[in-house]
Amino acid sequence: MKGIWNKIIRVDLTTNNISVQSLDESTWRRYLGGSGLGAKLLYDEVNPKVDPLGVENKIYFLTGPFCGSAIPTSGRHAAVTKSPLTGVFAESDIGGYWGNELKKAGYDGIIIEGKSEKPVYIYIEDDEISIKSADSIWGKHTIETDEILKTQWTDDIQVMTIGPGGEKMVKYASIMTDGKDSRALGRCGIGAVMGSKNLKAIAVKGTKSIEYHNPEKLKESIREIAQGVRENGKGLNNYGTAGGVIGHESYGNFPLKNWELGRWPEGAEKISGQRMTETILTGKYRCKSCIIACGRIIKIEEGPYKGVEGAGPEYETLGMLGGMCLVDNLEAIAFGNELCNKYGIDTISTGASIAFAMELFEKGIIDETTTGGIEIKFGDEKVLIKLIEMIGKREGFGEILGEGVRKAAEIIGGNAVEYAIHVKGLEPPAHDARAYNGLALSYATSNRGACHVAGFTHGYERTNTFPELGYDKPHDRHSVEGKAEFVIKFQNLMGVVDSLKVCKFGISTGIKIKSLVEWLNYVVGWEDYTPEELLMAGDRIYNVKRLFNVGCGVSRKDDTLPLRHQTFKREGEGVVVNLPPIGRMLSEYYDHRGWDEIGIPKSEKIDELNI
Amino acid sequence: MKGIWNKIIRVDLTTNNISVQSLDESTWRRYLGGSGLGAKLLYDEVNPKVDPLGVENKIYFLTGPFCGSAIPTSGRHAAVTKSPLTGVFAESDIGGYWGNELKKAGYDGIIIEGKSEKPVYIYIEDDEISIKSADSIWGKHTIETDEILKTQWTDDIQVMTIGPGGEKMVKYASIMTDGKDSRALGRCGIGAVMGSKNLKAIAVKGTKSIEYHNPEKLKESIREIAQGVRENGKGLNNYGTAGGVIGHESYGNFPLKNWELGRWPEGAEKISGQRMTETILTGKYRCKSCIIACGRIIKIEEGPYKGVEGAGPEYETLGMLGGMCLVDNLEAIAFGNELCNKYGIDTISTGASIAFAMELFEKGIIDETTTGGIEIKFGDEKVLIKLIEMIGKREGFGEILGEGVRKAAEIIGGNAVEYAIHVKGLEPPAHDARAYNGLALSYATSNRGACHVAGFTHGYERTNTFPELGYDKPHDRHSVEGKAEFVIKFQNLMGVVDSLKVCKFGISTGIKIKSLVEWLNYVVGWEDYTPEELLMAGDRIYNVKRLFNVGCGVSRKDDTLPLRHQTFKREGEGVVVNLPPIGRMLSEYYDHRGWDEIGIPKSEKIDELNI
Repeated sequence: MKGIWNKIIRVDLTTNNISVQSLDESTWRRYLGGSGLGAKLLYDEVNPKVDPLGVENKIYFLTGPFCGSAIPTSGRHAAVTKSPLTGVFAESDIGGYWGNELKKAGYDGIIIEGKSEKPVYIYIEDDEISIKSADSIWGKHTIETDEILKTQWTDDIQVMTIGPGGEKMVKYASIMTDGKDSRALGRCGIGAVMGSKNLKAIAVKGTKSIEYHNPEKLKESIREIAQGVRENGKGLNNYGTAGGVIGHESYGNFPLKNWELGRWPEGAEKISGQRMTETILTGKYRCKSCIIACGRIIKIEEGPYKGVEGAGPEYETLGMLGGMCLVDNLEAIAFGNELCNKYGIDTISTGASIAFAMELFEKGIIDETTTGGIEIKFGDEKVLIKLIEMIGKREGFGEILGEGVRKAAEIIGGNAVEYAIHVKGLEPPAHDARAYNGLALSYATSNRGACHVAGFTHGYERTNTFPELGYDKPHDRHSVEGKAEFVIKFQNLMGVVDSLKVCKFGISTGIKIKSLVEWLNYVVGWEDYTPEELLMAGDRIYNVKRLFNVGCGVSRKDDTLPLRHQTFKREGEGVVVNLPPIGRMLSEYYDHRGWDEIGIPKSEKIDELNI
Repeated sequence: MKGIWNKIIRVDLTTNNISVQSLDESTWRRYLGGSGLGAKLLYDEVNPKVDPLGVENKIYFLTGPFCGSAIPTSGRHAAVTKSPLTGVFAESDIGGYWGNELKKAGYDGIIIEGKSEKPVYIYIEDDEISIKSADSIWGKHTIETDEILKTQWTDDIQVMTIGPGGEKMVKYASIMTDGKDSRALGRCGIGAVMGSKNLKAIAVKGTKSIEYHNPEKLKESIREIAQGVRENGKGLNNYGTAGGVIGHESYGNFPLKNWELGRWPEGAEKISGQRMTETILTGKYRCKSCIIACGRIIKIEEGPYKGVEGAGPEYETLGMLGGMCLVDNLEAIAFGNELCNKYGIDTISTGASIAFAMELFEKGIIDETTTGGIEIKFGDEKVLIKLIEMIGKREGFGEILGEGVRKAAEIIGGNAVEYAIHVKGLEPPAHDARAYNGLALSYATSNRGACHVAGFTHGYERTNTFPELGYDKPHDRHSVEGKAEFVIKFQNLMGVVDSLKVCKFGISTGIKIKSLVEWLNYVVGWEDYTPEELLMAGDRIYNVKRLFNVGCGVSRKDDTLPLRHQTFKREGEGVVVNLPPIGRMLSEYYDHRGWDEIGIPKSEKIDELNI
């Protein structure tokens, strides 16, 4: 195999034992890398019943075969573990430069096991791998940690670190990379797992180059596709993901007031990517090997939020800290975003948890006696920021909100559960299940909970086509017919994309299945890899994640939608009233997946996939 | 007021205090009697958080204003309490002769409070009410108890009693009346509440006659409707409720194999009412004042089930002990039915629990180590009967099954929960939610859990019309449009029917709203009672039950369907594949009910109803 070192570091923090291992070529071929390979290793090595924050849980950081190459959007890596937020399979996928640096150091991934007695970080410089005391960085926020380690070693290193959120094991703590540019392994609380192991950071410096099977043909094939990606990515380049706010709000996809409000056009306009471009934007950020550059760089030079400098808020963050909390001050959101990044907590779950608290307060289910005297009202940016800090520090009422909405509702009791919007414990991101039946089904069935990127279907339900999967026109977003098959095809494809490690925006701007297969053959040298094998790998990857979840106790009862999205009509001008018929879609989904009636993969299916 | 004594006995079993109380006329007018009045008293007197089997729970036995009159099908009473099976509002409604006897004794109802130190029964003979030792009947089955008390007192008494199931507090223990004719207050485990109070039975003898406001007009009005009821009730008279087996099976309404199988025509034919008529039927049974006589009297004279004599199995019992368990031997079912009646356990929950165990065994979720060595297979009549006995005696694995499927699944663990078919802890009866969207919505919203008689809609979704409610033709059973309003109208009406105390078969065979109102005016003397006031009383009654449930913690999360009926397609010749879109229907239901988005009655609604 070329393009893959076939070297995975394994660090046991209990024993301080460090080793490097290789895998069978067949394992690579069947799981490819990234979260697919991570899922396979998790499934093989970790008992699904373990305490996610206990010593027996492991974290798998994996790059993909494309990482380090010039393949557009391939500068990515994944983290896989059992989630402390959901209690089931967790993955998170990230761009930036850390994955590329690990690859340059001569590795495809790193597995973290055990638990260190004292706070440590791991330092990797090519063949040298060491465990270092984290005394100088423990307690520091993420950007500071990046700076301290760079000062201590060299500016050339790439640092992946948790903040105080991860150290204190906030259930949705993130892991951050790229310093001020703040890329996040955001979802599922993987940062808390890192914190539970007393592992503050992994810093990497690499100087190696990897060989490809057919670099010339690879280059040529990339060239063929690159121009189109660049062209189609112009909108993302111009306004970032934030450019979607106004559009998504206009038809009822943008989250508002804990998913209760129909429209909010004035608010959306004020926090849009267009507004950001006109006001606080100072530059654009691109991940390694990216030709789109959707990242935002901002600076706030005056006013109460003066001093914010670095990564600007993404669409999801604007949705969750903005729309969900009805906060329409872009600078306040940017400040909140930076706080989340510094504390190392997921902006999506943070915003969802705060919006949840706002609704409970409005409905009288909680009051100042629960919140420690804070009046928590929708639209109050000061309260938003105060609560972000309290969550990040796990202080006072922030400790309850830092459990995520599912657990927080349990703690609060009464009817709080009715306002806790989640699937399998994961709060949905800034896309409304009522706006897309396929998205709804994806939320219900995604292995990590309410996730919009596992299927990444919604674009293909409204505007985009995907002829290679048989969709010459968008799949009507409110149709039910054929929706299960549609979702499954995309979930399988996107699982492969997360394993090869390219960005989904690469796919949505023009990278084709044909290209992925060609590149895989040119990079690795499997000259006979076909689109069919690729999609079968996607199916296998989806199923191995499901099998881990089955071990966690997941079955049909968990494949559901938040009750609000099942029963509460979203109404407003331009909003098509829709309540996804999840029962029927799920029934068809199981049939197409080859799962039994409670969602357990049938043994024939498992055999067929050679898991 | 005429037709109502306005005398309700209150017995405190802790203090042995016995009193008789009256209520405001306005309370009668607003709640009428039966389960409506019971619900109002429960709501006013019992903290919804009490332990259903604790000393603070109460039981309300209430007749209605029509009970004791010649109004067709009015020989009925109701029991209301908090259910130990579901943890929410419980009611059960019954025909027979006991209610009539209580009315003749000069009372409209009896309230049981507290808990006796030792087993007792209550004996009522007109003005004499006493608490007696139950030494001679404790431990006896229901028919034996009836015989012993009749021997001890006189054949003229009417006995309502629990069996060993109620004494041992099987969670779905019933209360039985009418000796061998075995009428049951079957659902929700009210027998266990009686058992928890050490109350074995209530025996009554009455000699009084009540006056009616306008007996002549009442008689005339009854005459006008009676012939039609008799005519329309011929099918029920001919074959009993059991006559429905073949028809309901033919289109996928009859429960099969824990709701997993599509068709079973051979089986249905073998256990049908038609077959019963040809074989073991010896007579027909009519409740007091009934002109339909749907009850069956049977006798088995030979074979392994020789000795069965008395009440034959109803449609529901044939569905639950027969179809659900795939037992196609009518005599075995009749034997099982008699056993359930003797032990005093609900045939519906019993059959459901056994079918649940059969599926778990088939799926390998339980095996002989759990069941105490019993191989539990679908279709095995010997096992069916053995398990009924074990449940009735609360022995071995029967103790787990006697908890009902929801709790049993919790105890068994693993994926057992996926096969536990219930709503709010109550197992659905022998009608399939997938066959009728209105029934589905009724199951989801009925105050006592998955109940088909609270709305009693299904007949009006396929064959019957109800012009007085605006339904000149049946409401298409698979439609969604207008279904919420349709269900609410019927739930409100049927709530009144259960309060006035007439039989729903009276309604389905021709008693009109107009007649109910006329009779109410002629009986009681409220000359200005209107259909509008009647239906508003129905709305009030539905809401007072809901309010009690809200106090128990019920909200939208509980208004759901079993997952199997939401996601598992029932297929087969003649079966229309349908998965009820419960989310949409529920949303519309709440709107029409004047409830908020989590199903809590709004304060305006409560005020409007004058609860």
